[in-house]
Amino acid sequence: MNPAEVVDEFIRRVTSDDLDGALQLVTSDVEYDNVPVGTNIGPEAMRTFLVQMMAGIDEVVFAVHRQVATGNTVLNERLDRFRIGDKWLDLPVAGVFEVNDEGLISLWRDYFDMNTFTERLTAILG
Amino acid sequence: MNPAEVVDEFIRRVTSDDLDGALQLVTSDVEYDNVPVGTNIGPEAMRTFLVQMMAGIDEVVFAVHRQVATGNTVLNERLDRFRIGDKWLDLPVAGVFEVNDEGLISLWRDYFDMNTFTERLTAILG
Repeated sequence: MNPAEVVDEFIRRVTSDDLDGALQLVTSDVEYDNVPVGTNIGPEAMRTFLVQMMAGIDEVVFAVHRQVATGNTVLNERLDRFRIGDKWLDLPVAGVFEVNDEGLISLWRDYFDMNTFTERLTAILG
Repeated sequence: MNPAEVVDEFIRRVTSDDLDGALQLVTSDVEYDNVPVGTNIGPEAMRTFLVQMMAGIDEVVFAVHRQVATGNTVLNERLDRFRIGDKWLDLPVAGVFEVNDEGLISLWRDYFDMNTFTERLTAILG
């Protein structure tokens, strides 16, 4: 797999409830940075964050609108969609990934507006 | 200029107080979208937004950490730095650009966290 394909497969696993499989595609010192929230280092910290993020979420879709890769760097523009019951929380996201020469992700950094997430979550949960 | 070079030159003009020159590099229906804020259509709307954004700013630097281009699409990861007096407001940003075949930017979309901007501005202005 080239770096863009690694990112595609990683996203496929993250959004299909295959967290163990996703973590097989990251380095042991992977940096997982949600810019407004902060950085997690290592697969277990990534797992903890993702498990917490997915709590109460019934379905997740990352709709990738644009994805561009050069060398080890992959940047994408997405709409991350979280289904809660029969409602969807849509979060616009721009992602930065670095994939090493062994095909493992060493950086996943997402840019988004935290207030957008919070307000849409509140609108759904009431 | 290829699309990445158009973006480079556009950023150079925006950050060197050459707004007229920057607007020469955009289409007449350019979409300028600051994701947490909203979309502006057309060069004059872009001008109005940028003039308001730069009010009270003494110096602007867009430090481009990563930039990747394929076809007409350019994505980058930046630290946008705004100097107010002797203090810098640093805003992490991910940008999406589309450059048409005539070398004009038809889309500039920036992803960032609005609270980060507001909190850092408040910290500087008191």
